[in-house]
Amino acid sequence: MAKVVKTAISPTREQDYPEWYQQVIKASDLAERSVVRGCMVIKPWGYALWENIVNSLDGMFKETGVKNAYFPLFIPLSFLEKEAEHVEGFAKECAVVTHHRLEKGPEGGLVPAGPLTEPLIVRPTSETIIGDSFARWVNSYRDLPLLINQWANVVRWEMRTRMFLRTSEFLWQEGHTAHATAQEAMERTQLMLDIYAKLAEDYLAMPVVRGRKTPLERFPGAVDTLCIEALMQDRKALQAGTSHFLGQNFSKASGIRFQNAEEKEEFAWTTSWGASTRLIGGVIMTHGDDDGIIMPPRVASAHVVLLPIFKNPEERTKVMEFTANLSKELTDQFYDHKKIRVEIDDRDIGGARGWEWIKKGVPVRVEIGPRDIAGNSVFVGRRDLGIREKKSMPRDRFVAEITLMLDEIQKNLFSRARIYLKENTHTIDDSKTFYDYFTPKSKEPSEIHGGFSYSHWCGSGDCETKIKNDLSVTIRCIPLTDENGDNGSCICCGNKSTQRVVFAKAY
Amino acid sequence: MAKVVKTAISPTREQDYPEWYQQVIKASDLAERSVVRGCMVIKPWGYALWENIVNSLDGMFKETGVKNAYFPLFIPLSFLEKEAEHVEGFAKECAVVTHHRLEKGPEGGLVPAGPLTEPLIVRPTSETIIGDSFARWVNSYRDLPLLINQWANVVRWEMRTRMFLRTSEFLWQEGHTAHATAQEAMERTQLMLDIYAKLAEDYLAMPVVRGRKTPLERFPGAVDTLCIEALMQDRKALQAGTSHFLGQNFSKASGIRFQNAEEKEEFAWTTSWGASTRLIGGVIMTHGDDDGIIMPPRVASAHVVLLPIFKNPEERTKVMEFTANLSKELTDQFYDHKKIRVEIDDRDIGGARGWEWIKKGVPVRVEIGPRDIAGNSVFVGRRDLGIREKKSMPRDRFVAEITLMLDEIQKNLFSRARIYLKENTHTIDDSKTFYDYFTPKSKEPSEIHGGFSYSHWCGSGDCETKIKNDLSVTIRCIPLTDENGDNGSCICCGNKSTQRVVFAKAY
Repeated sequence: MAKVVKTAISPTREQDYPEWYQQVIKASDLAERSVVRGCMVIKPWGYALWENIVNSLDGMFKETGVKNAYFPLFIPLSFLEKEAEHVEGFAKECAVVTHHRLEKGPEGGLVPAGPLTEPLIVRPTSETIIGDSFARWVNSYRDLPLLINQWANVVRWEMRTRMFLRTSEFLWQEGHTAHATAQEAMERTQLMLDIYAKLAEDYLAMPVVRGRKTPLERFPGAVDTLCIEALMQDRKALQAGTSHFLGQNFSKASGIRFQNAEEKEEFAWTTSWGASTRLIGGVIMTHGDDDGIIMPPRVASAHVVLLPIFKNPEERTKVMEFTANLSKELTDQFYDHKKIRVEIDDRDIGGARGWEWIKKGVPVRVEIGPRDIAGNSVFVGRRDLGIREKKSMPRDRFVAEITLMLDEIQKNLFSRARIYLKENTHTIDDSKTFYDYFTPKSKEPSEIHGGFSYSHWCGSGDCETKIKNDLSVTIRCIPLTDENGDNGSCICCGNKSTQRVVFAKAY
Repeated sequence: MAKVVKTAISPTREQDYPEWYQQVIKASDLAERSVVRGCMVIKPWGYALWENIVNSLDGMFKETGVKNAYFPLFIPLSFLEKEAEHVEGFAKECAVVTHHRLEKGPEGGLVPAGPLTEPLIVRPTSETIIGDSFARWVNSYRDLPLLINQWANVVRWEMRTRMFLRTSEFLWQEGHTAHATAQEAMERTQLMLDIYAKLAEDYLAMPVVRGRKTPLERFPGAVDTLCIEALMQDRKALQAGTSHFLGQNFSKASGIRFQNAEEKEEFAWTTSWGASTRLIGGVIMTHGDDDGIIMPPRVASAHVVLLPIFKNPEERTKVMEFTANLSKELTDQFYDHKKIRVEIDDRDIGGARGWEWIKKGVPVRVEIGPRDIAGNSVFVGRRDLGIREKKSMPRDRFVAEITLMLDEIQKNLFSRARIYLKENTHTIDDSKTFYDYFTPKSKEPSEIHGGFSYSHWCGSGDCETKIKNDLSVTIRCIPLTDENGDNGSCICCGNKSTQRVVFAKAY
């Protein structure tokens, strides 16, 4: 039997992955369940991570000409009904506002009063309410393209929730654009997918596959849905961002018309695209280990934590002064165009302190005691390396090399995740192997989910549904690269197929 | 009769101030009414202004140790009821969620279904839901102070709405802190008020009076409400930010308890403080003129607009190249620690183009034609000066002096607003003069509202209510400075008073 190493998170990923996930969120102080069904409280350490994701994405959006705006939280029921597939897709999970005040009820407590003439839906997504504005804003081809984004909260009343991955309320951005031609709208759909992929890979260090959803998996009302799919450490896929080409479906529903250069009236071509706090779930499940989350430096809530060590007031004075100076020199430097984010934790709580920061996943931990000061050195631990692999470094070299070190950690995390993705991606052309791949080989939780399988598919919804029913495996996407575009036979029915698609279990 | 100058906004402030306000918002493309009752759409030009306000405030909050977090949109009715005055204050304007899905009704259309066992209130403010988390987060005096802020949307179902000033949904930040002592909580209440004052004066160029609300005007559930009050150009006051000392009212309602250093259990002392998109209404009404909004440079959606002028493709090429180079040199510079924000408008729409940017209030307009290029100069208009006061400047001097120019505009706006405030602030100790001051002298809209009056008040709610009923004038605040703290007689009843308070009509 292997030697048992005590880990900060119990259970380990191997023992019980879903429970490990919940325990990491708790131990790393990212978020907590609220009393409101399916809603969560994002705590400061989790929210700082989200702020960094927001800033990164927002900058990339703006570079492509997108402007931010803000639209109402409430959508009149009649608006949602304008696009038939759309309302069908969201009707089962809507928070409905029916009254606009409270008054004393017959039993003394407050009860809803002031019934609304038309119920309002708390936005699950905003195509229809934004379409109403676009219809006013767009008159001529000169008003196009219209490139708008909003950062907002949305509500989808989920029956089974899981923090960050599926909550009744979540934070996200939703981009909405209108164009004069289908071609231009499709290019925008692709461009925004590329931005999501860049965020995932370059910032979150989370390798993704870019692809197209099958008709069954499309956004309700879309003509085409592009997506990025990542692989978590339990070998389940996570959809990490979607970009939709909406054709003229929503412009017809909302009346977004424009005069073209020949003064003929046309309906605009629209897109929408979104990414959410779900990405935080992706970061946890891509990089986290049995000691907690590991934050990729480019989006980490803090880059460095300084941990002063002292035994008496005299030592305290010396150590705190050294710490303050070090902090200043670090925060004066830039990493990834932003000032280095430093936390100082001088609480006198013993060994628990270091473990807290390990669990919180701060990339670099620095211990500073009287002996370090005597040698003008610091004692440094990197979160991407073993917990005990700490090393002493000359203080000045540490300051000089911190940005390099953060870069190395960022790269190391990505490289590890890419290897994991590669090891758990297979090309399977044979039905039995396919069923074996997705059938648990043992009761070990880690053996349950298979991974990614690139397999042929004939294009039929029946085959897709059969595999879903048999194995709980779905087509995550039809990859955009055509390296898997050779001919073959459908993994399900054996009929002719022209390209492989990515199958996996998914969140 | 005075010479009639044609203005971009009709009516003028003089002719009809409330209508002028609506027309400025429309002409400057800041926002529009939405189909959803009382809600607005914040358009990109208005949202960019809000983003700059958000970034300024957020930075100041963080410097004082505040961390951002995010709490649920929905508050269970039973939570709101925990603090009696609080629920009383908000019951009449609550959006109430009663159902969680939609289903086909008897007449074929969708109707609310899945009734909730307990109604949920869309947050009008979050003391009670955040208190629920604080009760879990605070255990020991070591956990204090707890300094939290959230950027969020809130809903208060207003019957009479006005864009930015009073809308059913608005964007704001709400800070919530918990402390071990009343003293420390009161200091935090004051500190946050100081930050709001700094934002108003140094960023929005909007002079304010700092003060304390009377018991009748306090936040529902607060022990003490501090506020900043600004004076609009129709001589009505605008409350521009509030900071509340909540005593132990909410910690008792939510159970926020901690063990003090002597291991005795105590209730924490809490504060809350907020500022909202209403500030944009303040910017419009402080600086706007009869040609539109004037944006203070530090928060302006853009600092400079470049307006290339050309008559043929050959000229176009030359002018656009010159414009692009100029833009690059400008955006490479920093103003107020951020890159200079430049817009280029090359639309071929004649004189309407320049007027659009005047109405939008961009601080600096730069026209660039072939003749300017020949002389290596630019033709510059400052929005704080007369529309026709444009001047030619050597291009390189313009680049060298742009940050200085923006600074000058910022200062000029503040100085003008301060003069306006001073001219419309009076010390009135005599009842007849007081009633005259607040009684319209003519039907001219500008003559209606009086201004600020520093007058003695005995402290009685009856006097306060009488003046409110007689004149629609309220006590905006009891100033924090004691320069008006001498003895006198109440302006209403003549009884003894120990200090003057600020009376005004208000938004």
